[in-house]
Amino acid sequence: MVAQQVKTIFQEKYRGVGRMLIACPDRPGIVASVSKFLFENGANIMQSDQYTQDPEGGMFFMRIEFFKEGIEDSIDELRRAFASVADEFEMNWKITLASRPKKMVIFVSKEDHCLRELLWNWQAGDLNAEITMVISNHEDSRDLVESLGIPFYHLPVTAETKAEVERKQRELMEGNVDFIVLARYMQILSPYLVEHYRNRVINIHHSFLPAFIGGKPYDQAHKRGVKIIGATAHYVTEELDAGPIIEQDVSRVSHRDNVGELKKEGRHIERIVLARAVKWHIEDRILVDKNKTVVFT
Amino acid sequence: MVAQQVKTIFQEKYRGVGRMLIACPDRPGIVASVSKFLFENGANIMQSDQYTQDPEGGMFFMRIEFFKEGIEDSIDELRRAFASVADEFEMNWKITLASRPKKMVIFVSKEDHCLRELLWNWQAGDLNAEITMVISNHEDSRDLVESLGIPFYHLPVTAETKAEVERKQRELMEGNVDFIVLARYMQILSPYLVEHYRNRVINIHHSFLPAFIGGKPYDQAHKRGVKIIGATAHYVTEELDAGPIIEQDVSRVSHRDNVGELKKEGRHIERIVLARAVKWHIEDRILVDKNKTVVFT
Amino acid sequence: MVAQQVKTIFQEKYRGVGRMLIACPDRPGIVASVSKFLFENGANIMQSDQYTQDPEGGMFFMRIEFFKEGIEDSIDELRRAFASVADEFEMNWKITLASRPKKMVIFVSKEDHCLRELLWNWQAGDLNAEITMVISNHEDSRDLVESLGIPFYHLPVTAETKAEVERKQRELMEGNVDFIVLARYMQILSPYLVEHYRNRVINIHHSFLPAFIGGKPYDQAHKRGVKIIGATAHYVTEELDAGPIIEQDVSRVSHRDNVGELKKEGRHIERIVLARAVKWHIEDRILVDKNKTVVFT
Amino acid sequence: MVAQQVKTIFQEKYRGVGRMLIACPDRPGIVASVSKFLFENGANIMQSDQYTQDPEGGMFFMRIEFFKEGIEDSIDELRRAFASVADEFEMNWKITLASRPKKMVIFVSKEDHCLRELLWNWQAGDLNAEITMVISNHEDSRDLVESLGIPFYHLPVTAETKAEVERKQRELMEGNVDFIVLARYMQILSPYLVEHYRNRVINIHHSFLPAFIGGKPYDQAHKRGVKIIGATAHYVTEELDAGPIIEQDVSRVSHRDNVGELKKEGRHIERIVLARAVKWHIEDRILVDKNKTVVFT
Repeated sequence: MVAQQVKTIFQEKYRGVGRMLIACPDRPGIVASVSKFLFENGANIMQSDQYTQDPEGGMFFMRIEFFKEGIEDSIDELRRAFASVADEFEMNWKITLASRPKKMVIFVSKEDHCLRELLWNWQAGDLNAEITMVISNHEDSRDLVESLGIPFYHLPVTAETKAEVERKQRELMEGNVDFIVLARYMQILSPYLVEHYRNRVINIHHSFLPAFIGGKPYDQAHKRGVKIIGATAHYVTEELDAGPIIEQDVSRVSHRDNVGELKKEGRHIERIVLARAVKWHIEDRILVDKNKTVVFT
Repeated sequence: MVAQQVKTIFQEKYRGVGRMLIACPDRPGIVASVSKFLFENGANIMQSDQYTQDPEGGMFFMRIEFFKEGIEDSIDELRRAFASVADEFEMNWKITLASRPKKMVIFVSKEDHCLRELLWNWQAGDLNAEITMVISNHEDSRDLVESLGIPFYHLPVTAETKAEVERKQRELMEGNVDFIVLARYMQILSPYLVEHYRNRVINIHHSFLPAFIGGKPYDQAHKRGVKIIGATAHYVTEELDAGPIIEQDVSRVSHRDNVGELKKEGRHIERIVLARAVKWHIEDRILVDKNKTVVFT
Repeated sequence: MVAQQVKTIFQEKYRGVGRMLIACPDRPGIVASVSKFLFENGANIMQSDQYTQDPEGGMFFMRIEFFKEGIEDSIDELRRAFASVADEFEMNWKITLASRPKKMVIFVSKEDHCLRELLWNWQAGDLNAEITMVISNHEDSRDLVESLGIPFYHLPVTAETKAEVERKQRELMEGNVDFIVLARYMQILSPYLVEHYRNRVINIHHSFLPAFIGGKPYDQAHKRGVKIIGATAHYVTEELDAGPIIEQDVSRVSHRDNVGELKKEGRHIERIVLARAVKWHIEDRILVDKNKTVVFT
Repeated sequence: MVAQQVKTIFQEKYRGVGRMLIACPDRPGIVASVSKFLFENGANIMQSDQYTQDPEGGMFFMRIEFFKEGIEDSIDELRRAFASVADEFEMNWKITLASRPKKMVIFVSKEDHCLRELLWNWQAGDLNAEITMVISNHEDSRDLVESLGIPFYHLPVTAETKAEVERKQRELMEGNVDFIVLARYMQILSPYLVEHYRNRVINIHHSFLPAFIGGKPYDQAHKRGVKIIGATAHYVTEELDAGPIIEQDVSRVSHRDNVGELKKEGRHIERIVLARAVKWHIEDRILVDKNKTVVFT
């Protein structure tokens, strides 16, 4: 029921709205060609952002939000028509429907503050997503999740069950996922998932990366005596805590704060940073360039 | 000598770079026409920002930074060529040379922290400006200003001399000014100057406008017991402290801070906020829309 | 059940912990007398904060957190013993048990983000409170509140029922309240309640007071074109939006944000600012001095 | 002349003001004994801050600002009298005159933004210091420094001259220094100076430590694609960039910022963070506890 309400909000809000994302080697004429194409195909540019890495031989990135009456039914046609423009400029590109909800799977362990924040933002009509399931290695969040009509799967992980659990995760998600959010999931994701969902798995790390890579970052921060703590949302890659950074934020602390208090304060930043990253991903605002992100906010 | 160094920095940095600023009623085809025009005239878009107020019947704002070999000599030609595009869309527009320094006049009274910040940023090669003069109703800053080779004029203001001083100010600035910065100038500017330099006079108000309009904002803030103080850079209009806001920032304070300490803390914010606003003005990043600004940062 | 868990957390955390709050005219010897008293009564100072308004003839404020074995049973005795010290210095004072939960009543209307934040922080063991009831002029939050075992009262307000509703509110709260939180309650509280619970009713105003006093602050902010929006938690007084400010925070916005987006962004600040103010109130960190607060964080 | 003005400001501001700093193992009765001592010696506590690491067996830290008529002449007497209290509690302590300017030596290389900030704050009456000299391995800042009547020494460092330069530095500072500020000094200080001036050499590191330790932190930050950059002021120890952190602050950046822009933005944070650290050091607000600081702000 909540799911249906959210869906309706975005179908109305984004009626006729499409998005075009482009990454290609920079050269003269890209914007002219793209905007001419859109104009001739009856699409009006509502918002456009671009970024040129380096005028001489760098990459060019662009995100356009446009309005085109009936885009919901004619998007495939538009894609076919755009192919020739894209080929000419060697573009890596996609055109998406803004109204189409992205299928989101959330992984969580015991601490539920990030999960709660996502669910709350979703209910509030901030995230155009269909939360297809929540997967956890603990039972704690079952009531919260199921009360919103979202399937909850409890898949505890041990050294023995690891392979079996991964198989099960893949099976559950098959056809039910556009992207994955690790909302304080304290297990390493399998290499298969990392590889298969490249740039589609968002993790929240509870430190200001690259400071305090690895386990127990708040303990590390306390030991080092930092005056500011942070959190980092990033796409997951093979190397732990080293994937492309999407968003970071920080909070001021002092000598008075022990590890427990750093954790409490940190929870506020974690949930805010993760929620921003998820929202930007859903709204197609993030382009990945090697190990860095271009974020059009 | 400093002036010559600064000039050289920007001539190299911005060789071939032009800027196009547009405001017009929104309708389909603007971006296509503009980008086609630039492409056909050999200009490559380096950075483009746009903002549509409201897809149905609102205004459209755009700022483009482009590279065109030899723009320094062909800018008038480019302007003439663009006129027909501009007419078609009823544009309010301009095309500027990024390398051309803007002529800046600074007004200051006794407190010199904002003046110092501007001079420092200018020396550091952050502001592409020619500081044609500093005008003050006090002598205090003469040494500082003259040591950098900038003319300093001491024009004290009294009820009797007011009209004469204004005449003198206008005379001095005649042909020597693109915009004016009130860097904590504690006199009301004459209506003539306000009118004549509309959207070209930047003031720093020492409060988080519209809180604490008028005199002694830190005293007001202290009395009200606020937990955050701020500063506001805005264009000057006839109505005091009510012009279009360019930038604001804030700083946290507590019950421990008396008025003197609020002022000290405030000086930090004032100079940072003013310096940002001046930089954005110089870089043609600000478009004024009635009593509000569109700032493309 | 949640209530019992929260209670247990704080009974353990604060076993033996007491708090002393003092406001009195400043003069030599206060700290010496108070600390001597505590030492001689077997209390060890864990944390002490003080603030002297003005060394010459101003007020002195102090908050001490101390540990005294068995304080839970001997607090009345300690209070009696302290009376003579207090009299000598004309102190306005209290001694409280840190482990005793404060009875909190929450008022809410339709928007529930502030309510949710408080409930979440409470469940997470951050607020040592007993939420005795939630009162609303709408039904919307009933499920959320009752699912946590908290009584929910729907008291719709109309011009006709106003007096009756106020009588009902007072009746419900009689003996069940230490302080009241207006978590986006869009009705004016009755003068009786304001007077009766002076410095014990916390409101969240959705602007950076004193900017945008009154209704629709985000509309006002949008119209003025501010670059930063804020929220203010304050104690409620007879004069609307003019009570002692407890906490404020802000968030950066731009010309791109319409009123709806300002509201969304604002909700984040509102809930964070209100949660801080409530926590500080519960932890006896706020002393009110005329129309200002002294907050020992 | 500036030096004399600054001196006068603080002699008036701090007439009669003393400071007591204490670190000792925590146990009952410390505050009572200290405050009794001050009261009996005619000193009125103006401001007091304390921090107990851990009620069971941790360290206790305290900073008291007090007023005692004629303290300027009787401070040695007060120190002698306090020795017996200090012994009883095994205190590490000192009592200082707030009006006495600390002798500050500034080291700088080519980039002068931190030096300028310190000089400006000093001129503005914010830093109760006597700047006895500026030492640089470049000539660039000579005019700026000497124009304020401060001695400037140009000591270029090469592999061959290193030992000789260090000897010269020590000779110059002999008797002329209370603490040293490395205001973007790009040379490693000699182990002798680090050891000799332990917790009295403040460095500004241009990153958010412990991220990007070592050289070229902005290049590192750009490569990693962080969304926030920072600066860290810390006391210098043998291990590079690993000494006790005094203060940190950050600034938001984006994919648009190249290394040059990170550096420009970073300069703002560096100077603000360093200025805060220096001010706190001068005001005896920092106690060092192993490799961490307790800062009473």
